[in-house]
Amino acid sequence: MVVVGLGCAGACAAIAARDAGANVLVLERAASGGGTSALSGGLLYLGGGTPVQKACGFDDTPEEMQRFLVAACGPGVDEAKVRVYCEQSVEHFHWLVRQGVPFKESFWPQPSMEPPGDDCLVYSGGEDAFPFDRIARPAPRAHKPRHPAAAGGFLMQRLLAAVERSGAHVVADARCETLVVEADGRVVGLVVRKSGAEWLVGARHGVVLTAGGFANDAAMLARHAPLLSRCSWKLAVEGDDGRAIRMAMGAGADIARMEAGEVALPIAFPNRFGGGILVNRFGQRFVNEDTYAGRIGQETLLRQDGEAWFVADEPIYERDFAGIPATHVEESIADLERGMGLPEGALVATVEFYNRHAARGEDPLLHKKASFLTPLSRAPFAAIDCRPGSLQWATFTLGGLRTAATGEVLDPDGEPIPGLWAAGRTTLGIAAAGYVSGISLGDASFFGRRAGRGAATSRS
Amino acid sequence: MVVVGLGCAGACAAIAARDAGANVLVLERAASGGGTSALSGGLLYLGGGTPVQKACGFDDTPEEMQRFLVAACGPGVDEAKVRVYCEQSVEHFHWLVRQGVPFKESFWPQPSMEPPGDDCLVYSGGEDAFPFDRIARPAPRAHKPRHPAAAGGFLMQRLLAAVERSGAHVVADARCETLVVEADGRVVGLVVRKSGAEWLVGARHGVVLTAGGFANDAAMLARHAPLLSRCSWKLAVEGDDGRAIRMAMGAGADIARMEAGEVALPIAFPNRFGGGILVNRFGQRFVNEDTYAGRIGQETLLRQDGEAWFVADEPIYERDFAGIPATHVEESIADLERGMGLPEGALVATVEFYNRHAARGEDPLLHKKASFLTPLSRAPFAAIDCRPGSLQWATFTLGGLRTAATGEVLDPDGEPIPGLWAAGRTTLGIAAAGYVSGISLGDASFFGRRAGRGAATSRS
Repeated sequence: MVVVGLGCAGACAAIAARDAGANVLVLERAASGGGTSALSGGLLYLGGGTPVQKACGFDDTPEEMQRFLVAACGPGVDEAKVRVYCEQSVEHFHWLVRQGVPFKESFWPQPSMEPPGDDCLVYSGGEDAFPFDRIARPAPRAHKPRHPAAAGGFLMQRLLAAVERSGAHVVADARCETLVVEADGRVVGLVVRKSGAEWLVGARHGVVLTAGGFANDAAMLARHAPLLSRCSWKLAVEGDDGRAIRMAMGAGADIARMEAGEVALPIAFPNRFGGGILVNRFGQRFVNEDTYAGRIGQETLLRQDGEAWFVADEPIYERDFAGIPATHVEESIADLERGMGLPEGALVATVEFYNRHAARGEDPLLHKKASFLTPLSRAPFAAIDCRPGSLQWATFTLGGLRTAATGEVLDPDGEPIPGLWAAGRTTLGIAAAGYVSGISLGDASFFGRRAGRGAATSRS
Repeated sequence: MVVVGLGCAGACAAIAARDAGANVLVLERAASGGGTSALSGGLLYLGGGTPVQKACGFDDTPEEMQRFLVAACGPGVDEAKVRVYCEQSVEHFHWLVRQGVPFKESFWPQPSMEPPGDDCLVYSGGEDAFPFDRIARPAPRAHKPRHPAAAGGFLMQRLLAAVERSGAHVVADARCETLVVEADGRVVGLVVRKSGAEWLVGARHGVVLTAGGFANDAAMLARHAPLLSRCSWKLAVEGDDGRAIRMAMGAGADIARMEAGEVALPIAFPNRFGGGILVNRFGQRFVNEDTYAGRIGQETLLRQDGEAWFVADEPIYERDFAGIPATHVEESIADLERGMGLPEGALVATVEFYNRHAARGEDPLLHKKASFLTPLSRAPFAAIDCRPGSLQWATFTLGGLRTAATGEVLDPDGEPIPGLWAAGRTTLGIAAAGYVSGISLGDASFFGRRAGRGAATSRS
């Protein structure tokens, strides 16, 4: 069988397919494996009671994890996929460890971003903030491999070593151009460009597509997700050009939720907006500032057209944004509002309302935790213009091929396309609209394994 | 050639193809033609200086029309499609008249809905409200055929009569099951179920798909547009089940903006929210209440999770909602806020801010026109719970097959699929995210003509 793309999903597919006894050829477009996974922070969303969760004193179950993911990654998540992902998450943790991916039994209390040291466990999706803290029992679930700072490169080193040990045959600098489909619709191979020539590669047991998303195809992004186009920083390698998605459509595949994307305002990590307020073009608050930074990013770009300003008083600004220049500094909120070009009295009313309740430790509007609630009262007051024209926003795509929980690629009527599997950001995974950090490597590794095993054990 | 589906797009395709000299077979799934078009209000979005616009004293140009549509129907509209649509709109008006569709040279000043009498011209997309009144010179462009009240049935009577005169052969009760594609990718016919048997129908010059959207396929709607699923009233006939979209994907077609939809809160028509305020779950205003009701619907469902309440004082409520029971009535805004379950002080602050500026004829937040600005001051105060659980929301789908401005169906690489054309809500038309009333029949008729002519003159 053939695996297209050697990021996290492709590596796990190759390993699982070799474990199931198949001959495996991996075709990687770049000079070596790793892909976008190697550029990431390395967080893997795992839970339901992993050894790390238990060692750190967090009580979690597959049911709580599922309740959270359905709420945080929706609307419109594939509940069958979420169920198997949560039920088998502890088993998947152990599988990753067996592939050589170590995890330290430690918790890092600063949420939303990978720990700066080699600590492991972190809240990464607003599990402990409104509204999710009322939907499911909060537990941190993002697991970072034991490596200082961003661990995506380290994770891929370990997985690529496991691929090598598995005996899968990796060919780099090989660009897949199209799928070969028999008259009965079965995918039986690919046309591959390598060393300046086209090669016809047969794929007994079929093809597994794990070639990333489409954030780096400007035309596809503009066509399917025009709002994401406004983010100038694509968290993606060159190969994330949607080619595999288009190839699969040529073989009859369905696509889903192509508008969906992760959206991040880099200065918001880790949860740095918690102490101040974030306001829209009307001077209104619109999201609890203590939630996951990626949620703040999506709410701001997708529902407020990217129009947002962070506002704080001096002590909070100095504590959380020291060294980052404010775009507006004034001695009063009224002056700040004027300087920001907001409607007269709008920000003044918002801050009055916020301060009145914050003084009592309450946020009746957005339910920010009491520990973040300090009235904004000490001049000067500062604002950061967070609009995409002012700051660099980051994005990658979440939509893609529609797959079953087995990793089989489905056609528009929901029937599997014989010989075609997929995983990772080439597919729509767990995150169908909302997003949590760690879910991309999480579902790429989990459904990559399933796709690899499924293809390997299918009829040849 | 074969036309699949006899609504507005199919009728215009059939007429244009006959005009170009082709033999035309129209296959309609229902017992007779009309489709969802016949259930509609009959508005057609036309402009750039139609005879009706001129007779009513409105100065319009293709350029102003284009500027408006790009802003109101985006983000992400196909600018090439919009351009040709606007440039040829006056010609298209005359073509419709030649097919027997009459228009009265009159203007109806109440926006957002078809005129109750046989008047023609109406503002139907917020052209004269913020922000569009600052983007393009306002002009009403929705043209209703000369017929009392809703004119969709009348429009289709006239178009079906023109189809009959054209000599196209119409077969009803015929359900298309799949496209027949040759080895080189060309669409050459269909498998059709009729009278309990399957028939293989050849299509010299190819197939034109004009079979409606997918609002009535619950699984497709949930998969592609889960927020639209919350609207219980589908503005769609049974045939709007996405079958044609899925058939075309089987032949290699791309799809686009499947998440997009028209969203309407029926009590909002015609622009009845203008006098009061619409607030979200935080008690905040979020859209100028004097804009197009469909824009209010989209903003509320897609950006506020459908959580909205209309609030007015007694004189305004009695004037605009007489006979419609309020869900909350109280002697003060503070009591109303409590009764509605809004955060303490939130609605009070919103109304104070609104009233203070409204007394001066200003709305610095959302720029509602001065004529709508009356302070809400005369008790009792009333609210209507507008959430989908309380009121019936209406929707239909806007996403669908990706087509060129010629009506050719495109594959994911942007290449036309030989022998395959499409128009109407089977395709993504002008409205890619936003919506304006009249654009569905407008682009269905316009691109239906182009698809029919294109197919008829293509190589056989």
